[in-house]
Amino acid sequence: MEKLTVTPWEVNGELNDSSYSKLVEKFGVDLINDNLISRINKISKGNLHPLLKRKVFFAHRELNLVLDDYENNRPFYLYTGRGPSGKMHIGHLLPFTFALWLQRTFNVNLFIQMTDDEKFLISGKEKNEIEKFTNDNILDIISLGFDPKKTHILADYRSAKVLYYYATDVAKHITVSTVKAVFGVNDSDNIGKVFFPSMQITPAFLFSALTGKKMRCLIPYAIDQDPYFRIARDVLPKLGYYKPSAIISKFLPALQGNSAKMSSSKTESAIFLDDSKAEVKKKLMKYAFSGGKDTLEEQRKYGANPDIDFAFLEYSFLEEDQGKVDRIYQDYKSGKMLSGEMKELAAEKISEFLESLKTKKEKMKDRVGEYMFDPEKIKLYS
Amino acid sequence: MEKLTVTPWEVNGELNDSSYSKLVEKFGVDLINDNLISRINKISKGNLHPLLKRKVFFAHRELNLVLDDYENNRPFYLYTGRGPSGKMHIGHLLPFTFALWLQRTFNVNLFIQMTDDEKFLISGKEKNEIEKFTNDNILDIISLGFDPKKTHILADYRSAKVLYYYATDVAKHITVSTVKAVFGVNDSDNIGKVFFPSMQITPAFLFSALTGKKMRCLIPYAIDQDPYFRIARDVLPKLGYYKPSAIISKFLPALQGNSAKMSSSKTESAIFLDDSKAEVKKKLMKYAFSGGKDTLEEQRKYGANPDIDFAFLEYSFLEEDQGKVDRIYQDYKSGKMLSGEMKELAAEKISEFLESLKTKKEKMKDRVGEYMFDPEKIKLYS
Repeated sequence: MEKLTVTPWEVNGELNDSSYSKLVEKFGVDLINDNLISRINKISKGNLHPLLKRKVFFAHRELNLVLDDYENNRPFYLYTGRGPSGKMHIGHLLPFTFALWLQRTFNVNLFIQMTDDEKFLISGKEKNEIEKFTNDNILDIISLGFDPKKTHILADYRSAKVLYYYATDVAKHITVSTVKAVFGVNDSDNIGKVFFPSMQITPAFLFSALTGKKMRCLIPYAIDQDPYFRIARDVLPKLGYYKPSAIISKFLPALQGNSAKMSSSKTESAIFLDDSKAEVKKKLMKYAFSGGKDTLEEQRKYGANPDIDFAFLEYSFLEEDQGKVDRIYQDYKSGKMLSGEMKELAAEKISEFLESLKTKKEKMKDRVGEYMFDPEKIKLYS
Repeated sequence: MEKLTVTPWEVNGELNDSSYSKLVEKFGVDLINDNLISRINKISKGNLHPLLKRKVFFAHRELNLVLDDYENNRPFYLYTGRGPSGKMHIGHLLPFTFALWLQRTFNVNLFIQMTDDEKFLISGKEKNEIEKFTNDNILDIISLGFDPKKTHILADYRSAKVLYYYATDVAKHITVSTVKAVFGVNDSDNIGKVFFPSMQITPAFLFSALTGKKMRCLIPYAIDQDPYFRIARDVLPKLGYYKPSAIISKFLPALQGNSAKMSSSKTESAIFLDDSKAEVKKKLMKYAFSGGKDTLEEQRKYGANPDIDFAFLEYSFLEEDQGKVDRIYQDYKSGKMLSGEMKELAAEKISEFLESLKTKKEKMKDRVGEYMFDPEKIKLYS
């Protein structure tokens, strides 16, 4: 049997329902059950995010405690992040649309960490190249519409004065052995990579540290990031903070299928945010993993499996009219709609989204400063 | 035979001439020879620092290249530091009097690093306690008379934005294996301690990094700090900088003798900068390691060994009239002067020095800001 390895720096093995079940057990997370979904659905006034509805976000840790806090008017905050190793593709943006939805639904503060230091420490890229991606990625992210008053972007190098200060609190409680066991690093790894988990764990209590108010942090992340937050749950109580709560996704749909994360290392393997309408269409037609059948006849007869179909999934995440999404789902599944038609529809929707994002991005260029982490701004919440 | 272990975090074994010879060989440093002394003597216009004259600073690495630079009007800079784990005693101040002398003799910039992060990571002390010591130590140090225009104090936590940025350049070239081999850390050590060498190495090229001018760095340090700079000499050329040069001291004279470093963990084991005149005298009389003979009769007959006598050594470092020092040396060595008289004289000199330092320290309280690291100030030298 193939060995399944899932750490932030290595994902090996086929990812399917069975392997996700194994990870749930191995990592000790809980599945999101109907009770939780119905609580969130109620809070969101029936406006459940499609990534939750389709169980792409499928697991959690103490999400119930965060909902308890919300229902009892106790403050909490969100934390997510990105490693700025390249241009963003639509797969990268999805978790941010989810974080945005969480921010709006719960009306809470959000940290977004850009791990420029990690990308420098683990790759062959130069700092100035990574900085360029960092700036470009930040623009992409804030163009989604985050609340500038409640969104705080921690670009690690720029925020290092505060981050390093608190990261040493974390580091003091993590041994080299632990990092070896949890992340699979070894003695030939560099000492910056070994220290880095302290930097990624810090935002999970930073809001409490800066405001002096002990509050819970909810972290949406893909399951490969779980090692950081498993350690965080061990360390944070020792520092007097809550264990972080988590809402955990499977790997997001990839252009070429779900067996691997959507990769940005090959141009044709993903739809980038600056792709033209023609490129989007071409990539979908040529590369998109399809849930449809091999022949027109079979498709008409048996229908497609939309749940693994890249075009359908992207369409479903971008189309705001959920009634329409449900109709397309039925049509595609029943065989009434063909794979090519699904791709055309998705191409249209994606291009529309990218066009609108480009316009917003242009307008956002002068407003980046409003979103960057500033400890004084955080202290206003104390 | 007793094993000799010398790292920044552990000093074990008797330290005598033979063990220093072993360290010189083991660490691969060079002894400071007469030729180097005479070059420095010439540059200092005959005003050689007593720590050099008495060969407390006894070894070096590429000190000759720094002197070449000076003689050819090429800029270089100095870097030294302190771990702010407690109040300073006079033993702690000595290397700073030497750094001050170097700064004045060569008229160069100087970094002083306060490793508050290291002290936090390796001790049980709280950050606020360490911060209090950091501030107090900084005041003690600047009261010696450093040039505020050319002295830049890097308190690690406060300077972390710049330090962490460059420290990751260093960290990327240091493996866990290397830190294990050089510092004797192991898998049960915390990841902050393992990363820390990057922070201490960074100032050895920081001036070049910030000004964009490749220049040499001369680092005066006690030999237990050598592991950092051995690694630095390996890493810095990979980053495009010069290997750091070093001027290396034995452990400085300790109140209770030279077999151990003067420790600040026990009040009676050192003369602290805030000790009263009465305390200074009492500590010298009661605890100071003496080079004199056991009885008055033997002392008169055989004389003392001033070179291992704490009272004489401190006196010799503080008395500016070197003719006077030489006369005392002869009188004490010949038996004309007794141990008690030597201690009285030293107590007088030390108290005088401490009194004057207290007055200066009071005046310096409002001027600390002038000495703190500011990257913009450094860039003026580019």
